[in-house]
Amino acid sequence: MADQYAQSGEDIQLSEDKQPRTDDVQAIRWEEPAEGPVLVLLDQTRLPAEEVELVCTDPQALVQAIRSLAVRGAPLLGITGAYGVALAAARGFDVRQAADALAGARPTAVNLAYGVRRAEEAYRSALGAGAGTGGEAVRERAAAAALAAARALHQEDAAASARMAEHGMRLLDELLPGGNHRILTHCNTGALVSGGEGTAFAVARAAHRAGRLRRLWVDETRPLLQGARLTAYEAARSGMAYTLLTDNAAGSLFAAGEVDAVLIGADRIAADGSVANKVGSYPLAVLARYHHVPFIVVAPVTTVDLATPDGVSIEVEQRAGHEVTELTAPQAPLAGVEAGGGIPVAPLGTQAYNPAFDVTPPELVTAIVTEWGALAPVTGEGLSELCSRSRQVTMS
Amino acid sequence: MADQYAQSGEDIQLSEDKQPRTDDVQAIRWEEPAEGPVLVLLDQTRLPAEEVELVCTDPQALVQAIRSLAVRGAPLLGITGAYGVALAAARGFDVRQAADALAGARPTAVNLAYGVRRAEEAYRSALGAGAGTGGEAVRERAAAAALAAARALHQEDAAASARMAEHGMRLLDELLPGGNHRILTHCNTGALVSGGEGTAFAVARAAHRAGRLRRLWVDETRPLLQGARLTAYEAARSGMAYTLLTDNAAGSLFAAGEVDAVLIGADRIAADGSVANKVGSYPLAVLARYHHVPFIVVAPVTTVDLATPDGVSIEVEQRAGHEVTELTAPQAPLAGVEAGGGIPVAPLGTQAYNPAFDVTPPELVTAIVTEWGALAPVTGEGLSELCSRSRQVTMS
Repeated sequence: MADQYAQSGEDIQLSEDKQPRTDDVQAIRWEEPAEGPVLVLLDQTRLPAEEVELVCTDPQALVQAIRSLAVRGAPLLGITGAYGVALAAARGFDVRQAADALAGARPTAVNLAYGVRRAEEAYRSALGAGAGTGGEAVRERAAAAALAAARALHQEDAAASARMAEHGMRLLDELLPGGNHRILTHCNTGALVSGGEGTAFAVARAAHRAGRLRRLWVDETRPLLQGARLTAYEAARSGMAYTLLTDNAAGSLFAAGEVDAVLIGADRIAADGSVANKVGSYPLAVLARYHHVPFIVVAPVTTVDLATPDGVSIEVEQRAGHEVTELTAPQAPLAGVEAGGGIPVAPLGTQAYNPAFDVTPPELVTAIVTEWGALAPVTGEGLSELCSRSRQVTMS
Repeated sequence: MADQYAQSGEDIQLSEDKQPRTDDVQAIRWEEPAEGPVLVLLDQTRLPAEEVELVCTDPQALVQAIRSLAVRGAPLLGITGAYGVALAAARGFDVRQAADALAGARPTAVNLAYGVRRAEEAYRSALGAGAGTGGEAVRERAAAAALAAARALHQEDAAASARMAEHGMRLLDELLPGGNHRILTHCNTGALVSGGEGTAFAVARAAHRAGRLRRLWVDETRPLLQGARLTAYEAARSGMAYTLLTDNAAGSLFAAGEVDAVLIGADRIAADGSVANKVGSYPLAVLARYHHVPFIVVAPVTTVDLATPDGVSIEVEQRAGHEVTELTAPQAPLAGVEAGGGIPVAPLGTQAYNPAFDVTPPELVTAIVTEWGALAPVTGEGLSELCSRSRQVTMS
């Protein structure tokens, strides 16, 4: 299996030399034109209708991009936060203020704060090391250190994606021998959320490369339709056999025995193994349990937050009601968080309950796949051990 | 409870004398202008943005209205089918051909075929009784008989709504003593689907009148958003405290202990008690079971199809993929079943799985409430007994 995967990976590597890969999605990149450094984001609110890039020159624009979900997905938010600090440093903004604004742009994804703090620490540490020497040169070196931290996080994330895909494939082989997998996924967890090929989607894509994916069932993922817009976009570009469905229709697939495994990502994993992920994940976990189907969470260890003891302690972001009461097509940019701007569907004045995430308790999670291996069963001890293993290697 | 309900009903009766009731919704009516009889439908695809009426003068227009969901909901489809036969008879169309086209316009709702056949039988029986007498007069009498049958069905359905509301209220009182109910509902089951106040929604409305409804949680009900558009519209007109949510967010409500009961309608109930209803009902049933919350189906006995032995035998309508891959706002009429016409959300060429219904097995249904009483637990024997009780009374 590992061989087959490597071989398939080599094929794609080779084809890069001949022509641009059609399945390449680059969600974020740092550029340094003459006017000064910028962070370029693929505006995910416009996909798949248009591939529009947002060029951010200041941290506030980036905060707005994060809030409006132009850039999204836990690992990518970490990378974005780190580059955001680097951008603030390079362009002479107040770095602490920028870091706080970026870290607080969305409350649930722990990776965002992690990326921000990592770049900020690199910046501060370089500033401290240069204390007493010339001010401008030190600030430049500190900005370079922040950028280096962001780039390192970006590369680590790409490498983590590849390792998660490998571990996930191995787990699928164990749980579902014989291949021919029909995998149900929710929200978007591919190259659009990552420095690499993503989390849950990376596993499905590896299975596809290895000829072991029969079908990817793609939940549309209301209210913002990340499945219909983004996962379908990535699946189509990857040449996978995929089928889109309303979140409601997943139950019928389970009942018909058409789902072999559920693969989802995570926005935050508490110390007890509770998983916060896109709203709609928890109902899938309950359905999966009822139908004896494995429910697998794929996420880098940076998603694990040992400071959050359990599911109840996870702060779940409540988003604006207009995401539910109005329809917003991807052709038009998503409106800001304060105002609507879509086409009203519900009667005017309708109140909406719109949590961005839900929390799945560890007892409903078959396994958590990280870049350091798969954890099954999911326990607080196992999770803590996995995290310390990752830290030991990172430190060494 | 019954007193309180009656009293509240009287209040509303009184207010009718002073001013038009703002919460009156009339989904269908028969009119006889000089140009000949017509069937007037409230176009439900345009709600809540616009209250537009469709004036149908021939059965084919009615078939199209049924297919496009301008008229929908199991009990109302039965009434529509019966009026459709009356319309065909009154306007001189081939009644058998019209009846077959109407009965086959949508496959899952058993009420549609029931209404059609009932009016057709009245028509045939009047034709047969008049055999040998003048052709034109007999046809007129037969058309009048079909219309009388449709009107009787319409009135029976209104009366059945009131009785279901009463039985449902009584059941809620038993299951959840103390009132203050937080009820979750799916799709639309109110006056827009009925000759009266509906099925599940009628129970919630009765609870609201009696001061026993704390909140109605309204699932938006993708793909066609009947919850967001129609149930929210009816709830707002009724002055209920209601909150709209994506179908995905129901899991979070259950987990937070915010749902006291689930109330849904049914499109077909098989002889073993399996319930076909709007897609997304089955996942709610599984969630309700997992959280020990009553899952209650409210439907008239005409919804029970003893000829369908079990859930597997229920034919589930598969609808066009564009309902999932495109967004269609209620301002514009829903496009026909063959073509899209909405705003594409998913990449072009995306295949969609779009069953209109799912099937909930009897073991997940706490009770079935009909106009003849509530059945709990749900068993084939109990269902069969309920149906024969209804037939005895109807025959006598």
